[in-house]
Amino acid sequence: MLLKILQTGFMGGKNIRKMSQYKLTYFNVKGLGEPIRFIFAYMGKEFQDNRISHEEWPQFKEKTPFGKMPFLEIDGKVYYQSVPILRYLAPQAGLAGKNAEEDLEIDMIAGAYGDLISEVTRYRRMENLIEKEKLRETFINETVPFYMSKFETILKKNGGYLANGKLSWADLYVVGHSSSLPGLIGYDLNENYPFWKELTERVYSVPGIKEWIKKRPEAVF
Amino acid sequence: MLLKILQTGFMGGKNIRKMSQYKLTYFNVKGLGEPIRFIFAYMGKEFQDNRISHEEWPQFKEKTPFGKMPFLEIDGKVYYQSVPILRYLAPQAGLAGKNAEEDLEIDMIAGAYGDLISEVTRYRRMENLIEKEKLRETFINETVPFYMSKFETILKKNGGYLANGKLSWADLYVVGHSSSLPGLIGYDLNENYPFWKELTERVYSVPGIKEWIKKRPEAVF
Repeated sequence: MLLKILQTGFMGGKNIRKMSQYKLTYFNVKGLGEPIRFIFAYMGKEFQDNRISHEEWPQFKEKTPFGKMPFLEIDGKVYYQSVPILRYLAPQAGLAGKNAEEDLEIDMIAGAYGDLISEVTRYRRMENLIEKEKLRETFINETVPFYMSKFETILKKNGGYLANGKLSWADLYVVGHSSSLPGLIGYDLNENYPFWKELTERVYSVPGIKEWIKKRPEAVF
Repeated sequence: MLLKILQTGFMGGKNIRKMSQYKLTYFNVKGLGEPIRFIFAYMGKEFQDNRISHEEWPQFKEKTPFGKMPFLEIDGKVYYQSVPILRYLAPQAGLAGKNAEEDLEIDMIAGAYGDLISEVTRYRRMENLIEKEKLRETFINETVPFYMSKFETILKKNGGYLANGKLSWADLYVVGHSSSLPGLIGYDLNENYPFWKELTERVYSVPGIKEWIKKRPEAVF
C-alpha cells in the first residue's frame, strides 16, 4: 500500500498527494463498526480493520477516547463515536444529503434507530434475569413493532430508502448494525419484517458493499 | 407577530421574505428541550415554547414522530431528535464548525455526552429499586468521574469550551441538559465539579441566553 503511494507520487510527478491512512478499531463483531466498514467498502477505500478480542478489551479500554469503540484513526489522529464518523465520511462517499434539510432527514432517521439500539443496550446490561427476559419480550412485542411501523412508512415514502428517496449513510448504518441483532438480543428483523429484509438486500447489493459482504471476516455476530 | 411580518412586507416593498415560524414541543422541563430553547435565545429568534404536561403525554405521544419529544415544527413541518435539530439550527446561529473537521469535533463531544445521558435514562427506567439505587451509585462514583476527567481535559485544551476552542452548539447542549440532572438522578455536576460550574456560567452569560435564563418559565427540573 505504502509502496503504491510512493510509486504514484514518484511516477506522477505533479499533484503528489498523500493518501490518508485509515484504521478502524472495534470488536470482532458487526454492530456499530460494520456501517463504517460499509462506507469504506462503498468508497473503495482501503482501511486497516483492527479487531480487538473480548480478552484484550479490559486492558485496551483505557486507551480509547471515552472507554468505547469503535474509533477511527485517520493518519494517526483518533476520532470516536460511530454516527459522527459516518457523518464525517459521508460527503466523501456521496452518501450525505445535498443540503442541510436532507442532512437533517438522514440525522433524524439515524437518531431514531439509535433510540432502538439503546433499548438493546439496556437489555444487554440488565443483570436481573427475570427483568431481562421481561425487557426482551417488551422489545420484541412492543418496541420493535412500533419502530417498524414507522420505518415501513418512511421506506415506502422514500422508494425503499430511509431518507430523501435515495441511498444515504442512514441505510448503511441501520443495515450494518441490525444484522447483529440476532446475536445481541436473539431477534432477527429480517426474518420478521419482509420490508426490512428488502432494505438489507438492497444495501447488500450495492457495488463495493456486495464485495465486502463476500470477503469480510467471520464475526461472532 | 403575524401583523409585524405583514407590516414589514407591506412597508418594505421589496425583499419581502416570510419569516419562518418555529414551534418547539416538549415537557415542562429543561432536559433535551432546553438546548434548543438556548439556540433560539442565542439567535434572538422567537419560537412558540409549547409545553406538554405529564397528564397530557400518554394521549399526545401517538401524535409524535417516534413517540418521543422534543420535536420542532418549522412552518408546520415536523422535525424530531434533539441533536439533529441542534445540528440543523447551528449554522444559522454561527454555532457550527467552520469545516467538516470542526463539525466532527462538535459531534463527537455531543455523542459522548449523549452516552452519559443514556446512563441516566437507564437509571430512570430501572424498576427494581435495589438495582436502581446500585445503578445510581455506580453512576455517581464511576461513570461521572470517568466522563468528567475526559471533559476536564477537553475543556482545558479548548480554552473553557468543549470543541474547537470556541462556543459551539455542544456547549449549549451539555449545559442546557445537565442543569436537569439534579431532578433526573439527584446529582448536580455544578456542585461537584468546579470546571463544570464554570462552563455553565460561561454559557449562562452568553448574550441572548443570559436574558432567556432570567425570563424562562419555572420548570419541574
